[in-house]
Amino acid sequence: MILIMGASSGLGAALAKQYSEDQQQVFISGRNAQRLANTASTCDAKYLAGSKSVDLCNAQAISLLFDELPTVPSTIIFSAGSGCFGNLDTQQPEIISAVIDNNLLSACLFLREVVKRYQDLAINVVVVMSTAAQSAKAGESTYCAVKWGVKGLIESLRLELKAKPIRFSAVYPGGMDTDFWPSSGKTLDTSSFMSADEAARMLKGALIQTEHGCVADITINRR
Amino acid sequence: MILIMGASSGLGAALAKQYSEDQQQVFISGRNAQRLANTASTCDAKYLAGSKSVDLCNAQAISLLFDELPTVPSTIIFSAGSGCFGNLDTQQPEIISAVIDNNLLSACLFLREVVKRYQDLAINVVVVMSTAAQSAKAGESTYCAVKWGVKGLIESLRLELKAKPIRFSAVYPGGMDTDFWPSSGKTLDTSSFMSADEAARMLKGALIQTEHGCVADITINRR
Amino acid sequence: MILIMGASSGLGAALAKQYSEDQQQVFISGRNAQRLANTASTCDAKYLAGSKSVDLCNAQAISLLFDELPTVPSTIIFSAGSGCFGNLDTQQPEIISAVIDNNLLSACLFLREVVKRYQDLAINVVVVMSTAAQSAKAGESTYCAVKWGVKGLIESLRLELKAKPIRFSAVYPGGMDTDFWPSSGKTLDTSSFMSADEAARMLKGALIQTEHGCVADITINRR
Amino acid sequence: MILIMGASSGLGAALAKQYSEDQQQVFISGRNAQRLANTASTCDAKYLAGSKSVDLCNAQAISLLFDELPTVPSTIIFSAGSGCFGNLDTQQPEIISAVIDNNLLSACLFLREVVKRYQDLAINVVVVMSTAAQSAKAGESTYCAVKWGVKGLIESLRLELKAKPIRFSAVYPGGMDTDFWPSSGKTLDTSSFMSADEAARMLKGALIQTEHGCVADITINRR
Repeated sequence: MILIMGASSGLGAALAKQYSEDQQQVFISGRNAQRLANTASTCDAKYLAGSKSVDLCNAQAISLLFDELPTVPSTIIFSAGSGCFGNLDTQQPEIISAVIDNNLLSACLFLREVVKRYQDLAINVVVVMSTAAQSAKAGESTYCAVKWGVKGLIESLRLELKAKPIRFSAVYPGGMDTDFWPSSGKTLDTSSFMSADEAARMLKGALIQTEHGCVADITINRR
Repeated sequence: MILIMGASSGLGAALAKQYSEDQQQVFISGRNAQRLANTASTCDAKYLAGSKSVDLCNAQAISLLFDELPTVPSTIIFSAGSGCFGNLDTQQPEIISAVIDNNLLSACLFLREVVKRYQDLAINVVVVMSTAAQSAKAGESTYCAVKWGVKGLIESLRLELKAKPIRFSAVYPGGMDTDFWPSSGKTLDTSSFMSADEAARMLKGALIQTEHGCVADITINRR
Repeated sequence: MILIMGASSGLGAALAKQYSEDQQQVFISGRNAQRLANTASTCDAKYLAGSKSVDLCNAQAISLLFDELPTVPSTIIFSAGSGCFGNLDTQQPEIISAVIDNNLLSACLFLREVVKRYQDLAINVVVVMSTAAQSAKAGESTYCAVKWGVKGLIESLRLELKAKPIRFSAVYPGGMDTDFWPSSGKTLDTSSFMSADEAARMLKGALIQTEHGCVADITINRR
Repeated sequence: MILIMGASSGLGAALAKQYSEDQQQVFISGRNAQRLANTASTCDAKYLAGSKSVDLCNAQAISLLFDELPTVPSTIIFSAGSGCFGNLDTQQPEIISAVIDNNLLSACLFLREVVKRYQDLAINVVVVMSTAAQSAKAGESTYCAVKWGVKGLIESLRLELKAKPIRFSAVYPGGMDTDFWPSSGKTLDTSSFMSADEAARMLKGALIQTEHGCVADITINRR
């Protein structure tokens, strides 16, 4: 079973649909119950192991989610997050606080629970960030800040847990056309961007593992 | 006048003392009023332009601080922050939340106010991070996360504001012996570490500017 | 047709074999004619478009290779290189010079020719480096130097040619069990390493492109 | 005594002049004997410990240089190198080969000799690169390649020798107005750039060491 966090839209939703079509069991989660139900309706019901909305800034809620999983997942994909754009001096303090909570605090608390429960299992934890985690961008200072933060978290966890069987894959998509952009208040011509479906297809191809090897990092971009 | 944030201890306190001894006006700020008073008592009173404790997670309180400054600072040194150590699964959620607030949210809100007020002035904004902002470290995953986050913020602000006269210097100290370590719950033999006084002396040497040039980034480490 | 450089052994040889089995035309090249013939013998003859040994430090020889290609390649995979290990003070000057030639000069001259000929075509140029291009390693200083160098070259070419249709994918394998290790004079227990065949299988999965997107960077590591 | 390599022009020449004015003994070296003599003539003769031109691509010549030093240097500053600009497809193969030799092979061979002789001494080895070692730049692909290469070399040497008393400082200047630019065939308006004298003054300030600490990395840029 593949646990997909942030499945209510974008890449997470596309992965849920495609994995279920590939006849893989998926358990989906997201902030928004209504939108999560939409994703669930796109999945092949036979391969939808469950669905549960959760507040990723609440450690107890996260723990409950894991308590309710029908089985231990073989792969966990963390694709939650929200955007925040515009020059720093134009961003409201509450928005800054929210983007930190939704991207960095959520990743810390979620991965803390994953590590507590599963560090001794050979589970692959796939963390979806953004190319904003790899380079600085004007007009995206707080978004880059939280994504660089998640990258620092993952790289440190790899060192911390290198003697353990749990593994982390880092995914950096860029230039993806999802409703992430309108919901972030940024107007962009995204007609040449790749769709979430395209990104999901490439990501699935890249996440294939072999007996001794795995893909550790992958950057997917528009051509 | 040099505005020093995080002056209640460590490198910020050492810089306050040394700059006042160099007959430079300093205005000091920090979370803890009592410890800030201690720092003030080490400064040459003639060169202490003011002192005010402030909660850097409160945007209004930050704005008030700037309203009360006697003059526009020529240099702003941001050296606030707190540590958080141990493997991720051993950290309590409230501690993780606090380390994010004290290091990343505070930097975002503080620099937002600086940029709002001063982006059109040739002010040098010196942001003190840590070598934990430059590399991953086992047992420091959340601390690395917030410090990588601040680095992403600064690098993005540089791009965002490159047409403006305001400038950002990034400082990465490592292996410094301050009460940061005991207050972070980490037991270390710090006898070979450099003192905050030593780091302050090197930093002052490095922050000298010339007509056309300045030090953009500096990493200070124990030998 | 896929042009594979460095096909006489390791990942390049494994990719040649696998792509020909997938019924893709391959043209293979390498330094060593004898070993290149070995690789050719592992490929399905129907899908071997050609084979030619070439000295990648000779710009004219590189140009001749392209003159002799039966068609313009749709994908070019550059997997040439050689290792060099041991502490810097133990390496002989001629070995240092050779590792620079075989890894960095060769990449510069080869990519120069690719860019001269094909920058206006939507060709995907896949450059295989090593995790030694991403992090420093004790005992591998010159090898890291040349691999960091190739990474700097690729990242700059991406900026230089971003308005052009040509695209570059960067591949960073680590912990692969090939005869690279014995030929580099390094003794390692590589029993837990992934084989070149495994790495080739993952790489092929990751290099799938969609209409608007492609994999820009991929790090493959042993689990 | 401070040994300065690449002292025939630019930052190396400015450092030689300034350190001699500060009454520090300097020994200067460079490729070009005539230009090295020019630098020597700007130094206070009482503090010029010696001068010798050397081909840094010749390991024996490097060894001879060290044999002839009057004393073991306390600090070694490596500021040798040459530029190479323009899109990759416009660069001649011999120019590419020369830029690799002058920047990367020279650094490998020189630092190899330094490490062989001095790894057990508390010498500070200062390696001057460029901001081109830190980020990719269009039109500078081979120059970035060699500078990224030197950075990879230094970072690996630090790991390789961390138990030894020898220390490495990395210096990244950007936007400096020297005859480097015209000699590299690049036409730039450098009127807002910092002069080599300014950069030397900042670098001297930054290189001050304390009992337990030193500046490990420093980026100097125009304002």
